[in-house]
Amino acid sequence: MSDLPRTRPTGAMVIGTRPVTGTGEEIRSVDPRTGQPIEPGYPAASADQADRACELAREASTAYRTTTPQRRAAFLDRIADLLDTERDALVERAHTETALPRPRLTGEVGRTSAQLRLFAAELRAGVWQGARIDPAQPDRRPLPRADIRQRRTAIGPVVVFGASNFPLAFSTAGGDTASALAAGCPVIVKAHQAHLGTAELVARVVSRAAAETGMPEGVFSQLVGSGTELGTRLVSDPRVRAIGFTGSRSGGLAIAAAAAARPVPIPVYAEMSSINPVLLLPGALKARGAELGAAFAASLTLGAGQFCTNPGLVLAVAGPGLDAFTAAATEAVAADPGATMLTPAIARHYAASGDALAGLDGVEETGRGGEGDGAACGRARLLTVDGRRFAGDPALQTEVFGATSLIVRCADLDELTTVLGVLEGQLTATVHADDADLPLAGRLLPLLEELAGRVLFNGWPTGVEVGHAMVHGGPFPATTDPRGTSVGTLAIERFLRPVAYQDVPDALLPDELRDGNPLGVWRRLDGAPSRAPLADER
Amino acid sequence: MSDLPRTRPTGAMVIGTRPVTGTGEEIRSVDPRTGQPIEPGYPAASADQADRACELAREASTAYRTTTPQRRAAFLDRIADLLDTERDALVERAHTETALPRPRLTGEVGRTSAQLRLFAAELRAGVWQGARIDPAQPDRRPLPRADIRQRRTAIGPVVVFGASNFPLAFSTAGGDTASALAAGCPVIVKAHQAHLGTAELVARVVSRAAAETGMPEGVFSQLVGSGTELGTRLVSDPRVRAIGFTGSRSGGLAIAAAAAARPVPIPVYAEMSSINPVLLLPGALKARGAELGAAFAASLTLGAGQFCTNPGLVLAVAGPGLDAFTAAATEAVAADPGATMLTPAIARHYAASGDALAGLDGVEETGRGGEGDGAACGRARLLTVDGRRFAGDPALQTEVFGATSLIVRCADLDELTTVLGVLEGQLTATVHADDADLPLAGRLLPLLEELAGRVLFNGWPTGVEVGHAMVHGGPFPATTDPRGTSVGTLAIERFLRPVAYQDVPDALLPDELRDGNPLGVWRRLDGAPSRAPLADER
Repeated sequence: MSDLPRTRPTGAMVIGTRPVTGTGEEIRSVDPRTGQPIEPGYPAASADQADRACELAREASTAYRTTTPQRRAAFLDRIADLLDTERDALVERAHTETALPRPRLTGEVGRTSAQLRLFAAELRAGVWQGARIDPAQPDRRPLPRADIRQRRTAIGPVVVFGASNFPLAFSTAGGDTASALAAGCPVIVKAHQAHLGTAELVARVVSRAAAETGMPEGVFSQLVGSGTELGTRLVSDPRVRAIGFTGSRSGGLAIAAAAAARPVPIPVYAEMSSINPVLLLPGALKARGAELGAAFAASLTLGAGQFCTNPGLVLAVAGPGLDAFTAAATEAVAADPGATMLTPAIARHYAASGDALAGLDGVEETGRGGEGDGAACGRARLLTVDGRRFAGDPALQTEVFGATSLIVRCADLDELTTVLGVLEGQLTATVHADDADLPLAGRLLPLLEELAGRVLFNGWPTGVEVGHAMVHGGPFPATTDPRGTSVGTLAIERFLRPVAYQDVPDALLPDELRDGNPLGVWRRLDGAPSRAPLADER
Repeated sequence: MSDLPRTRPTGAMVIGTRPVTGTGEEIRSVDPRTGQPIEPGYPAASADQADRACELAREASTAYRTTTPQRRAAFLDRIADLLDTERDALVERAHTETALPRPRLTGEVGRTSAQLRLFAAELRAGVWQGARIDPAQPDRRPLPRADIRQRRTAIGPVVVFGASNFPLAFSTAGGDTASALAAGCPVIVKAHQAHLGTAELVARVVSRAAAETGMPEGVFSQLVGSGTELGTRLVSDPRVRAIGFTGSRSGGLAIAAAAAARPVPIPVYAEMSSINPVLLLPGALKARGAELGAAFAASLTLGAGQFCTNPGLVLAVAGPGLDAFTAAATEAVAADPGATMLTPAIARHYAASGDALAGLDGVEETGRGGEGDGAACGRARLLTVDGRRFAGDPALQTEVFGATSLIVRCADLDELTTVLGVLEGQLTATVHADDADLPLAGRLLPLLEELAGRVLFNGWPTGVEVGHAMVHGGPFPATTDPRGTSVGTLAIERFLRPVAYQDVPDALLPDELRDGNPLGVWRRLDGAPSRAPLADER
């Protein structure tokens, strides 16, 4: 890759870690402030080019799967180091393409490299393999027991769809890619049209890191093209074994439908749609309604509201506390100047879907922010509706991607519980509770943990911590598969499958299952966790 | 349930742990020896009755999910104890319905109760929760870190389809039911038509155990009906959250298709079709070809070949060793008297699919067993084909459920590797290897672990050990989801989803996440496994 300028996008894709220019129709990202296309253009991948990326991924699959966790960790660490080195160029390009503020983007580079290093550390920690050993019992009656061992290994090539709202942390080298590469799966990224240049710069970093750490060609490719054509082609390809996606409900459902039409089913991890209900319990509302209203508005308008975990729904019992909350939130929203959204298309969709929600029966607008300026400005918006009406109209649950939220005023706690019961699956459910509210919170908690992937108290759902315990997932339509998370180290499990080894000679076993435990991994010996070597050598 | 005779089937289903007689068309199991229907008849579930079972499961879902693991363990142990108590009646009824030998069925009752006790022990071991705690870091810069904790919890009501070939261990209280109940999911069983009386007796045991251990009504139901009508209805019901199935490829694909048509996708764990390749490497074949042939035939004809892991394919390089293997296997197959299969329909399908395989281009029959007698007898059958032809015709991979196997004679090791490369996904892949074969075995192993859920050396795939390390699963078409296993304690993970708790007060957290770790479960504290309580109380 040394023949390419490191910091200037060229319009190329990456196929098998080499720069390749597409031969299809040219597409461009758009500056959301001006609506003008940004140079360079990116010719889309042809069918042959997509096929080539899939074939290289298939060819690399076994070699990459069987690299040691230590070598994959070095690969991830190297990507992280190079991202940090290229930080300024990445921030500049992403700022041009997304209009996200430079400090936010600087933080996002750090989040992306930290995430890669976390997966590298996870690879070295020796837990992810899920190693299990049931030693032989040659003297068991009536039949002897064979020696059986189990570990998880990579599922095969993964296609990752870059997300519009995190040009770094959920795109080319973001969480899906990091977890799939950690698992030992080759990755093919479909770059998001909103930030093609950023995607190219990051893809080049991944390529360089792959070459420098001796990874097989085909471990990483990035293609450019439309979701309908290239996306469907990749999801349908028999060599592809899993999908990671973050985006709209319609996009996720289209991918799930394409996957369902495959002769061979594969896991689809689509993180799609969530309105992230916030419950304000009576004690908290009474004690600090206005304070909560201001804090809520800050979470709502953060990043122009363009977060999967944006608080799009507030549930509370009507009364003075909720009035104070609403007044404070309305005031803060009215003071918001408006912000440029990620793309003109997203801004148009935001305005239209907000208008549709505001136009539904019983919905009133309590506040609206400034219009801002530029081609893609989003105005913050606060709506209210009563609980009975909300419970009766599923359309009121439609996600408006951006800084719009709906306050549901319930007549009493029974109505609030009824509203909870009709909600679709969510990424998060938030409770604001004072000590006096805890008995009620305790009764609601079982409902909330069935509703969402993450339940939080006295905070705001935006700001997803990357760690071991995070779950960024949840029941449909938050995702297509509630068994996974797309943030945190548990994300690696989405791309693994278990394999058992019966009476396989020690010399042939994967390292994590050998008697001597050379990697020092955690294993369940007859069910009991241990890092010890096997006492009796076979 | 005390008003019912314990050991005599009455024709009833179980809905919400109560005996209920269906109101649909009556169906009966058939004595496979005589082809005659067995009393009593079982009227099928009406749409209303199926709806009632689903509604009760939904109603029980939260209460059952939030029982302590210790209480669920007591429930499973009680089922096991009652099954052992009722053993003789179960064996007699199952013998009448399936023609499986009494000693085999006696063993299967023991396997079923041992499996329930293993899951009870797993619930007490405190690993399955996957608990993780990332403690708060209030002083972190630039932003403090919240306290985030994670555990897995039940996914919701599960529908289990009983299997024909294990009337106890894979049916009403078999592996799918045991793992789903352990996870905290209510279960609705669709009884298999081949052994309705056995299914009723076992369902009654589960009901009694549920009542005696104070489980909520709706934790268990069993319905009778056709796969097309009742099966599709249950798979499509919005209250059902996961499916467990063991059976034919056509049955599994029909269920997967019905599930794919749901608005809300759910996990489908269908264990369907596998021909379980056995590789005979040159050294082993040379040293003990005849011995291997006799042992292979014993595995092939065990239980009339009616095992998911039946060795339906043998791969080896042609030569004197393979000739000796084939001769010995042919002799043993010819000496097999034939055996009554599970149902007349299965016997008819066995004969027809065997004839279809034998009729394919290039296939030769080397041996055939006796015709046996009775309405549903299956004759063992040994076929051969050369490797080049096998690699060119996918139809040669069709599973023949029963004691038929195809020996693929490869010209050389390259051709054997080519054949391996075209195989569909499998439950098992077996290698027979002597010391001199180990380098070759080592080169093949990565292919085998991508091909199958279990790789075994110098044994036979029949006889699936129930333990912590077993994987009974594998890539499609062995199953619809290679991330799961339907045997062994890992099976519980199929019915769990992760939930994160952010800054939730200790008193409200699930026990496994509380600071003091009252259940003594294994948890990852900032990533490191530990059973210790949290050092610093919040």
